[in-house]
Amino acid sequence: MSKTVLVLGGDGFCGWPTSLHLSALGYEVVIVDNFARRHIAEELGAPSLTPISSIDERLNTWKEVSGHDIDIVELDIARDRCELRRLLASVRPDAIVHFAEQRAAPYSMRDAARRAYTVDNNINGTHNVLSAIVELGLDTHFVHLGTMGVYGYEGDGLEIPEGYLDVVVEGPDGARHPRSILYPTKPGSIYHLTKSMDQLMFQFYARNDRMKITDLHQGIVWGTQTEQTRLDPALINRFDYDGDYGTVLNRFLMQAAAGHPLTVHGTGGQTRAFINIQDTVRCVALAIENPPAAGDQVRIINQVAETHRVRDLAELVAELTGADIEYLDNPRSEAAENDLAVSSKTLKGLGLEPILLRDELLTETVDIALRFIERANLDTIPATALWPGRRETETPQLEAPRFALR
Amino acid sequence: MSKTVLVLGGDGFCGWPTSLHLSALGYEVVIVDNFARRHIAEELGAPSLTPISSIDERLNTWKEVSGHDIDIVELDIARDRCELRRLLASVRPDAIVHFAEQRAAPYSMRDAARRAYTVDNNINGTHNVLSAIVELGLDTHFVHLGTMGVYGYEGDGLEIPEGYLDVVVEGPDGARHPRSILYPTKPGSIYHLTKSMDQLMFQFYARNDRMKITDLHQGIVWGTQTEQTRLDPALINRFDYDGDYGTVLNRFLMQAAAGHPLTVHGTGGQTRAFINIQDTVRCVALAIENPPAAGDQVRIINQVAETHRVRDLAELVAELTGADIEYLDNPRSEAAENDLAVSSKTLKGLGLEPILLRDELLTETVDIALRFIERANLDTIPATALWPGRRETETPQLEAPRFALR
Repeated sequence: MSKTVLVLGGDGFCGWPTSLHLSALGYEVVIVDNFARRHIAEELGAPSLTPISSIDERLNTWKEVSGHDIDIVELDIARDRCELRRLLASVRPDAIVHFAEQRAAPYSMRDAARRAYTVDNNINGTHNVLSAIVELGLDTHFVHLGTMGVYGYEGDGLEIPEGYLDVVVEGPDGARHPRSILYPTKPGSIYHLTKSMDQLMFQFYARNDRMKITDLHQGIVWGTQTEQTRLDPALINRFDYDGDYGTVLNRFLMQAAAGHPLTVHGTGGQTRAFINIQDTVRCVALAIENPPAAGDQVRIINQVAETHRVRDLAELVAELTGADIEYLDNPRSEAAENDLAVSSKTLKGLGLEPILLRDELLTETVDIALRFIERANLDTIPATALWPGRRETETPQLEAPRFALR
Repeated sequence: MSKTVLVLGGDGFCGWPTSLHLSALGYEVVIVDNFARRHIAEELGAPSLTPISSIDERLNTWKEVSGHDIDIVELDIARDRCELRRLLASVRPDAIVHFAEQRAAPYSMRDAARRAYTVDNNINGTHNVLSAIVELGLDTHFVHLGTMGVYGYEGDGLEIPEGYLDVVVEGPDGARHPRSILYPTKPGSIYHLTKSMDQLMFQFYARNDRMKITDLHQGIVWGTQTEQTRLDPALINRFDYDGDYGTVLNRFLMQAAAGHPLTVHGTGGQTRAFINIQDTVRCVALAIENPPAAGDQVRIINQVAETHRVRDLAELVAELTGADIEYLDNPRSEAAENDLAVSSKTLKGLGLEPILLRDELLTETVDIALRFIERANLDTIPATALWPGRRETETPQLEAPRFALR
């Protein structure tokens, strides 16, 4: 009998291709979503650059092209705790993949309402799922999408291990007391704060209830399409380029497509971790296929393929498109330059050979930006969220698209 | 002009005497409460042993005996974010003391509804206050009541410092990398989990918004009355003895008063930290009078007077009352025996000379238990919350009261 996986947030940027990937692998997939991502895109006037279909059209098309059924349940896991429990009691999933947190750092810093929404949605939603698993006595493996960003980016050059850090406490008598602790977080936004708080919940439920929990500390996801979303235009994945939900790379591509200089905040010396969307879905499947043993700890896996400095990314895109680069003030409170070394031994041990962000592999994303640039609303590109004491000075330049691949 | 202090949860066991103490010191006190503690006591059929008055009667009496006004605002800070902001905008308090979290570990472990309530109330409530202070640009000093319990009780014999721990990370080349980290928590209940999560919020708002935050990591509070609550019967403080909200010491006193053996869970070798209610209110006032500088860290103070093993407490009460001691299975997942050493240098540095739990000082609490034993519902004494894999085996013995002080 095939295994059942609940994908919370299965209509979103990572959730949708993950749902298709798991369905293609033979899992019974049930998507749970309240369509918050679509609603927020409307609220911000920042729709996906790609013309995404309704969930019904997506699922009907998937059935046509693959022969597989995916169920959809519309549900707010943060607010409808009892409905969520009824669903879990009926489906009794082997695994739950949780993409249903508000995932944009700038959005979480916009104002008090968005701060409150992010805390409420992310903490209550995540806790409701954990609590329902305990209440129903399920043996479900809970897989959560976390972020490398919880650690901040002011490291001391040491490699970031996978979740737990070995430290030594030196006693007053000079004796060495070794301890293994959750790697201390240094969140730079309310969004990152909620992901830090999640870790404590996972640690608690793993230890107290011996729940099987995997937290995938993901890098910044780049790319748009996967093997499955390419199969039909109605399966196309979303592409966000606005100041809240767009990643730095997508922003560069859109700016290039619109004939605008690539705007680099600060010196561009910030080093970040990256992973391609195709590898995100592969990693989630690997995590599901290899659940951790029940034990005292949450299993934390760094879901990262490579690290790059932001200015190197800008240079890569400039080379590819002919765009100029412009350096602006940084609206975030963060280190101007940082190194970043990340252990990703678990995924390598499971056989992942990651896709790397080289010129030729960026081509697909460049192509998406070019293909749909007429749909773009370039007013949405600047980051408008304010970190304390800082103000975004970037203003959009509404010029005609003018780049071609070269 | 006198300073204004908002006391969130100012109708509760610690909040009420704190409000009176601050009012007596000349602060303008505004109590904010949604009376959740009174509602939960009704829900559990476990009213205060002492006959507490309505908030209106309390405040009218206080006005009569002291001449001071205390305002009361009925408000749910977790759910009425906008109302809370309006209140803060109007009052612009110099300090906020936050007692408005659900504070019983057993209650937080009863079932899924109480787990969800505890997470929702404690996290959203605390975050709403922090966020409103930022939104309004206030210079308010935020004082939160935390607990020593977040660290668990499985230490390695080293003294628990005040919040931050110096550790050494040893690099691959053998180099020593010293770091100062938030002392890692090991919460044993959902209640303790929320207090651990609070710390991350405090750390974030201190660092990101340079908010002045003090987190008082309190020991178990004993005693009932303070200088002010003794002034009139209508000012009397609450006394809880039920399995959810009663502390171990109050439970012993009630059992003795009812002619029941004192029930010790496990070996009674659990060591816990204690503080008298009179010192709680003094410590809060000291914290308000000595705000921290705005900086990168939350100021964490261990609000602890002394530590005792549970079986030593039982022997103290047995000596005082003639009661027997009975050893039962422990419903909690915790170490059978533990040492506990706690640094409390900040409060000592501020001049606190704590009241210690010696025979003569227990007398007042014994007196309360005896005076009101006829009001007791002894069915509520056993802990009914289940930690995983454990079940409380204690059953209440409904005998007549039969002890006298000796």
